[in-house]
Amino acid sequence: MKDWQTLCADKRQRQFESIPKEWIILPSGEFPGMTVKKRSVQDVPATCGLLNEKELEITETTDVDTILDRLRHGTWSSEDVTRAFYKRAVIAHQLTNCLTEIFPERALARARELDDILKKTGKVVGPLHGLPISLKDQFTMQGLETVMGYASGINNYAKEDCVLVQVLYSLGAVPFVRTNVPQTLMVQSFYHSPSVDLSQANEYGRQWGETHNNVFGRTSNPYNRALTAGGSSGGEGALVGMKGSPLGVGTDIGGSLRIPSGFCGLYTIRPSYGRLPYYGAANAISGQESISSVLGPMTNSLSGLKTFVKSIVDAKPWNLDPLVIRKPWSEEEWNLCDHGGPNAKLCFAIMWDNEIVKPHPPLIRALKMAKSALEDAGHTVIDWIPHRHVEIYKNAETIFVADGNHDYASECAKTGEPLITTMAPSEEELEAKTYEFSPPYPYAKHLVGDPPKHLSAYELWSLHEEKRALRKSHLDHWNKTVESTGTGRPVDAILCPSLAYTAVPHGMNTDSFYTTMCNALDYTTSVFPVTTVDPEVDIPQPPHKFHNHEDEAIFNLYATDVFKGCPVGLQLIGRTLEEEAVIRMTYIVDEALTVWKQKATS
Amino acid sequence: MKDWQTLCADKRQRQFESIPKEWIILPSGEFPGMTVKKRSVQDVPATCGLLNEKELEITETTDVDTILDRLRHGTWSSEDVTRAFYKRAVIAHQLTNCLTEIFPERALARARELDDILKKTGKVVGPLHGLPISLKDQFTMQGLETVMGYASGINNYAKEDCVLVQVLYSLGAVPFVRTNVPQTLMVQSFYHSPSVDLSQANEYGRQWGETHNNVFGRTSNPYNRALTAGGSSGGEGALVGMKGSPLGVGTDIGGSLRIPSGFCGLYTIRPSYGRLPYYGAANAISGQESISSVLGPMTNSLSGLKTFVKSIVDAKPWNLDPLVIRKPWSEEEWNLCDHGGPNAKLCFAIMWDNEIVKPHPPLIRALKMAKSALEDAGHTVIDWIPHRHVEIYKNAETIFVADGNHDYASECAKTGEPLITTMAPSEEELEAKTYEFSPPYPYAKHLVGDPPKHLSAYELWSLHEEKRALRKSHLDHWNKTVESTGTGRPVDAILCPSLAYTAVPHGMNTDSFYTTMCNALDYTTSVFPVTTVDPEVDIPQPPHKFHNHEDEAIFNLYATDVFKGCPVGLQLIGRTLEEEAVIRMTYIVDEALTVWKQKATS
Repeated sequence: MKDWQTLCADKRQRQFESIPKEWIILPSGEFPGMTVKKRSVQDVPATCGLLNEKELEITETTDVDTILDRLRHGTWSSEDVTRAFYKRAVIAHQLTNCLTEIFPERALARARELDDILKKTGKVVGPLHGLPISLKDQFTMQGLETVMGYASGINNYAKEDCVLVQVLYSLGAVPFVRTNVPQTLMVQSFYHSPSVDLSQANEYGRQWGETHNNVFGRTSNPYNRALTAGGSSGGEGALVGMKGSPLGVGTDIGGSLRIPSGFCGLYTIRPSYGRLPYYGAANAISGQESISSVLGPMTNSLSGLKTFVKSIVDAKPWNLDPLVIRKPWSEEEWNLCDHGGPNAKLCFAIMWDNEIVKPHPPLIRALKMAKSALEDAGHTVIDWIPHRHVEIYKNAETIFVADGNHDYASECAKTGEPLITTMAPSEEELEAKTYEFSPPYPYAKHLVGDPPKHLSAYELWSLHEEKRALRKSHLDHWNKTVESTGTGRPVDAILCPSLAYTAVPHGMNTDSFYTTMCNALDYTTSVFPVTTVDPEVDIPQPPHKFHNHEDEAIFNLYATDVFKGCPVGLQLIGRTLEEEAVIRMTYIVDEALTVWKQKATS
Repeated sequence: MKDWQTLCADKRQRQFESIPKEWIILPSGEFPGMTVKKRSVQDVPATCGLLNEKELEITETTDVDTILDRLRHGTWSSEDVTRAFYKRAVIAHQLTNCLTEIFPERALARARELDDILKKTGKVVGPLHGLPISLKDQFTMQGLETVMGYASGINNYAKEDCVLVQVLYSLGAVPFVRTNVPQTLMVQSFYHSPSVDLSQANEYGRQWGETHNNVFGRTSNPYNRALTAGGSSGGEGALVGMKGSPLGVGTDIGGSLRIPSGFCGLYTIRPSYGRLPYYGAANAISGQESISSVLGPMTNSLSGLKTFVKSIVDAKPWNLDPLVIRKPWSEEEWNLCDHGGPNAKLCFAIMWDNEIVKPHPPLIRALKMAKSALEDAGHTVIDWIPHRHVEIYKNAETIFVADGNHDYASECAKTGEPLITTMAPSEEELEAKTYEFSPPYPYAKHLVGDPPKHLSAYELWSLHEEKRALRKSHLDHWNKTVESTGTGRPVDAILCPSLAYTAVPHGMNTDSFYTTMCNALDYTTSVFPVTTVDPEVDIPQPPHKFHNHEDEAIFNLYATDVFKGCPVGLQLIGRTLEEEAVIRMTYIVDEALTVWKQKATS
């Protein structure tokens, strides 16, 4: 067998060769663009000359329902739409290193097939007819390798499509690229010792919500390539953030949809366990079912969230995946039957600070914007009182490492590739000035601490009991808010940051406290973009009484020259299995913000 | 602290004193009736003189909706209904030893309170207004002990009601007794070594689907007290089988609702994971969530199943229990929307033999009756081809003992009580001729084999991956039946025995192969009574080619003089989370059988 370095080099070479030569925009030797001396690359698609006017028009159309409408009516052919996004995806890749599998011929053949069907029958194949969809590198497709961040995935050709891909085909979609992930796929907790006191948290490496592996390397943020795109669905984040895909599918076990969506200015929804079909997708710690990974859409439009979730649920995925819950899309819940109906005045609660890490100024400003906008629209906004977050977080993190990293270690052992122990740029990367930015990296040291203990089944069961009690306690806490909402109902949804900060320099994403909570409690949660960092208004604040060392370190990180222009995203947290209502309430907040912004500028 | 024997004796004495003296029907010294030399005790309530005419009329009313209707209209008061069932429950207890907690004053006070409300307001409190409901000893009630089969439960007074009890109160029900369970609560698998070849299965003890513990002793079957009532919800089985309760609530992790229902002639439904609220109930191996225990109703009427499930789901239990799935009762699914609609001709598949244990002749006859009845009603009946049952069974059993019995051992260690290692009657029991029956006990030897290994978290995760693949494989197998049904749909439901036999002598219930499959695959499954054993027609068959030693031993067990008159129950297996459709299809089979029986006798 080849050594892992050779395997990885071969794979990267094959990836390079899979790109049509005429789509290469970088001088030879600069591929995949890591050395380009330019932080923001958002303008490149419009200026590089690779996209013609129509292709620019197509790819700048961010509303998924609009694209679907034009495909349905034949205004745009699927071939044209697929080629336009393909070219833009390849531009994005050259600038941010976001792709893994690239297969334009196959995707364009599929698109032409769909065009033919529509032409011949006058009918679409399904509600996603002709739409190019990008997929995180977990979603196996027949005949393609599933690398998923490990050298052991090279030459691992899938014998069949995973259930999601089967369903997407049945709905008329065009899976067209696959996207980069970190080795291990996990958010947080690598060598994080579960017993560690959180006041010492920054002494321990927990910076995994980024996208870097030994096969494809590191994915950067298109708003500023000195910053991470987040992870683990970071390839999707960078790609969709570059409008290189109208809609991507990622996964989330501790924040992996929401972190890159927050960092790249996208909409996403983390559905509850078992609402959407995961069967057959590759995964890390795949048998871990205590806190299940879920899949969800990442897109530039709210219509993308609704159309994706509804189309898949309407396909009755429980007939293909035994773990999917038999629950049809509910028009009643979409019409907010549990929240006073579609026109009711709602009560939102804002979590300004989870009492572990205080958010950076731009996040606080975004929350204030949401509060004003919602109050202007007639809704009530109260403060959310945080409830047992540290306990919830520790329980989740302890479960994630219950196997003492056995899964990761055995995956690496297959080829001898090293287990990556830090997300910080390497000496070589820093010397090559790849990122043109040398922060102090206060927590980007190599990870320390003992590997976690491999727990016994009984110890894991005890964690389940603890988790169940924490979920019940949080549910009761939420229900009790009925006393202060004035609506006769408990709080309809919680608003909070997706992370305590906007995109951070590579190696510095240490915080997933705001996201992991929702995985542990299985709350359906969306992320939506609110604004971008404006150093003129988002000025550093005086120090507060720090909750712990991590809070202090994150406070110190805030430097306006690094974060300028970065997207600022918030989470909307609903109850378990409330996908319909969460999307609908996100529409309500989004529309209120639109109106409020218009007023503010007029 | 008192030793465990003293604790148990004290508890039994307190239990005895909790029974109103005027309700004692046995001569002193014979309580709780274990030594009564009478096999079937079904006639005792009508002949013992304790129940007056009205109380007999009330308790002989098996249709739950009829009782609720009379309560709603004030035809019967809740106090009268509760007292009638209470007296009959105490009769049942004296004959079968089925109760644990007995608290008539509290229940009657609750009933009078409900009567007052109805009288004053003209309105019922909820859909279960005034209905006495019995509860398996897991369902904690404020101020009562939760013994749950362990001496350590004595003096363990609950601080609050479990969620189920909270919901039942809100619906107007009258929880009125609690019922006996086996130590460990489990069905099967005690010292069963997961690696054992099933061809050697009868060498290993796996006889736990019965009801016996060190605190309250053993529960007998009211049809024949030489036989077990089954387990682990065996107290409910005996009680409801004696019409001492119109509806009881049990639980099921490997067959614990369906085994006693099959043995005692009841209707039950094992819902899928998370449909009904379990939170706050005591449980064994409580943190084990790979194959979750579920709760369900046990009753003498199909209306009991529907009314219980619908009433609880309508109460939105997901607002009280974080593990309950947010899925309202679906009238569409009740109207068989996934099965061609309410008047469609269905296709059932009969599993005549699961290829592990061939059912006894009465079960085969019941299946033939169902086939004829359904065909007469215009439905199609085909043969079910068994699919990977041994693998599914082994996976489930290995998961159940993944903690190497740590949970059971630590519960026993709290008081020093011994872990019960066989369900066979003890030497003392046999010498006292308690059961008037000395079978050869071919597998009732003390359990042998090594205790199971305590698995690691990673080993447990690997079992999850295996389980998921088995579930997918079985789902695909089921879907593939679309080719042979003639309806355009896959098989609508599977019919098979609940166990390979009717109630067996104490200590001999070794088989849960037909039930555990549904827990592992999470198929919603009902049990319904079809007929009783008739030695004239259910004659022993010539030996078949035995699947394994267990199959041979069970074949040899069949002796008509033991089984005469025992109820014969079948299972109807539907898809995951198909509670509505499974109840509706059980109605269809039940009604077809009624028509068929009428024709057969006319």
